[in-house]
Amino acid sequence: MQTPAILLYADSAHNADQLYFGRVSVPDAFISFALGKKKYAVVSALEFGRVKRDSAFAVVLPLETFAAEARKCFPSGRITPAEIIAVVAKQFRQKSFVIPEDFPAGIASRLTHHGVKLQIADGAIFPQREIKTDAEAAAICEGNRCSTLGILAAEAMLRASKIKNGQLLHRGAPLTSERLKIAIEIACLEAGAISLDTIAAGGDQACDPHERGHGPLRANELIIVDVFPCVNSTGYHGDMTRTFLKGRASDAQRALVATVREAQLAALNKIRAGVNGQVAHQSVCAVFALRGYETKHTDKGSVGFFHGTGHGLGLAVHEPPRVSTVDYRLKKGSVVTVEPGLYYPGLGGCRIEDVVQVTSTRPKMLSDCHYNWEIK
Amino acid sequence: MQTPAILLYADSAHNADQLYFGRVSVPDAFISFALGKKKYAVVSALEFGRVKRDSAFAVVLPLETFAAEARKCFPSGRITPAEIIAVVAKQFRQKSFVIPEDFPAGIASRLTHHGVKLQIADGAIFPQREIKTDAEAAAICEGNRCSTLGILAAEAMLRASKIKNGQLLHRGAPLTSERLKIAIEIACLEAGAISLDTIAAGGDQACDPHERGHGPLRANELIIVDVFPCVNSTGYHGDMTRTFLKGRASDAQRALVATVREAQLAALNKIRAGVNGQVAHQSVCAVFALRGYETKHTDKGSVGFFHGTGHGLGLAVHEPPRVSTVDYRLKKGSVVTVEPGLYYPGLGGCRIEDVVQVTSTRPKMLSDCHYNWEIK
Repeated sequence: MQTPAILLYADSAHNADQLYFGRVSVPDAFISFALGKKKYAVVSALEFGRVKRDSAFAVVLPLETFAAEARKCFPSGRITPAEIIAVVAKQFRQKSFVIPEDFPAGIASRLTHHGVKLQIADGAIFPQREIKTDAEAAAICEGNRCSTLGILAAEAMLRASKIKNGQLLHRGAPLTSERLKIAIEIACLEAGAISLDTIAAGGDQACDPHERGHGPLRANELIIVDVFPCVNSTGYHGDMTRTFLKGRASDAQRALVATVREAQLAALNKIRAGVNGQVAHQSVCAVFALRGYETKHTDKGSVGFFHGTGHGLGLAVHEPPRVSTVDYRLKKGSVVTVEPGLYYPGLGGCRIEDVVQVTSTRPKMLSDCHYNWEIK
Repeated sequence: MQTPAILLYADSAHNADQLYFGRVSVPDAFISFALGKKKYAVVSALEFGRVKRDSAFAVVLPLETFAAEARKCFPSGRITPAEIIAVVAKQFRQKSFVIPEDFPAGIASRLTHHGVKLQIADGAIFPQREIKTDAEAAAICEGNRCSTLGILAAEAMLRASKIKNGQLLHRGAPLTSERLKIAIEIACLEAGAISLDTIAAGGDQACDPHERGHGPLRANELIIVDVFPCVNSTGYHGDMTRTFLKGRASDAQRALVATVREAQLAALNKIRAGVNGQVAHQSVCAVFALRGYETKHTDKGSVGFFHGTGHGLGLAVHEPPRVSTVDYRLKKGSVVTVEPGLYYPGLGGCRIEDVVQVTSTRPKMLSDCHYNWEIK
């Protein structure tokens, strides 16, 4: 029986498997596949030269030729990528393919109808994506260098601000989450990375972990700054969070921040190859319980610690492995974030996040930024 | 028989249907569906408060509750979004769903196995996305305002540059594509939009239409600047291109630019409701043929005019309708780009792009930027 060949249909600007496979960023979805060790791509004239020159594809085929052939082979009915893939499969005499779980169902259904056999991968189509090579770890370090520059830009802006009636003023105008995010994103751009969905949220806003932050920032409130830029040249990400406060912290805020940092160190102490991610996560929960920080879920939302301790990081911001309540054994070479957080409206939110590579002993830090958080 | 309900599983940071449906940007894939006129989302605690507050979903359900239920219902085997959807479907007594063509095949296959009936939409799941309301047209105008600011930032940088031995110098250092792109992207950021994959490519690089540009820019070469930012507050895009030249243009370059602009006006003259996009595209080809600009495809790539005249623009940068060789009748209210281009290595590339809304008479311009291109 013929070995099924890997088949992808996705853009590589957003789909990390397609980028991992072809190592070239293409904004529109395109066909790619592997026959033996050779990688093939089918792209339009718009992308042809660039993909031929800059990618890991051994063979780059012109979409227009196969589209014309598909119109001949399927004279009635709509021509979709499925009809084009069917024509390509016929030309290469490949009857069966393995597709990833996120392959478009519409194309899969039409391909099956055209007699192409499809097998859906059970789990990751490229399991080796989870284990980072030295070059990949270096690319993630570079992402975190950009994160650090973004975080330091935010810190500098807070430091340069003045407090007036509890509000923060920067160069005479109210300092808002939006202005802080722009400063962070410019710092990343200038370092060669794109920071999307940057978080700079203060006060109760920071208690919604994915709230980006909006409006004026206030003195004496915890401000969460979470920066996860994508490096333009490689597609790998950084992901770091620091929590700042401009003005004077209360004892309760100091205890909160100290506890989050203590929990982060507890998790870092557990992370190594062969250990279950649950163990690191539980060590975070244990610190929070010991220090009296309760987690509660209500109809209005959750307070306390209600997200995972960490996630894999690479070409995607969130990828395997998980460091959470999920049963997942950590492997040597994996790269994960370690980001405990506590969120209590009224008191505020705090999250501290770094990135490490799993080894057989202590994890290797792939991020580097100080932890000073009170800004006078 | 029960009416099948629309079911989506996608993030809404990249998937325009999910954003159109829920009107909230969520970076990780989540479950959403419609029962009658009510829209439902199932999201994690990380997103719960924000989605409840800021979205078009009438009901926001906690993912954690359904995940726990799924673990009970499917005690052996992996818990994927499919098992969670199966539990949700059971609770709402909904046995069949319509899914979009890009729904993940892995989830579709597991759902079918669990007895949930799926029907794949033939074409767009939200065909009304193609017809833009006044508010949507205004949001696209805002995107193009950001595009214009980016293009003007590039123009200003070229204008402020000095020519030395054929190279461009800006503030004493070589002016590169990278520096031009950073200036454009900062202008967009400050205007409230994110410009990804910005193109600022000169000379032969500009002859690869999706080459972003890299390295030093030179005097007397055509430089294509293509800016398609996403407005943070709405998710709608702008998309504009201008071609500049710093120094002195040759007669051949002037003829090229004049012909591209003539072709753009010819296409604009054809675009109206009821007309086939092919007709506008052919009017571009006719101008190029009349002026003697040939299109050729070779193994090394293509020269001349080898992309569509335009594409729909909205929550996605590329969406229906098409203005190309494809048979596609334009509808009143559609928004399309009009972007003919000519590309000849040696001579250079030129593309001029604006955005219009289709009406029953002349198209309404949704972009506004001058066409002066020679910068002394």
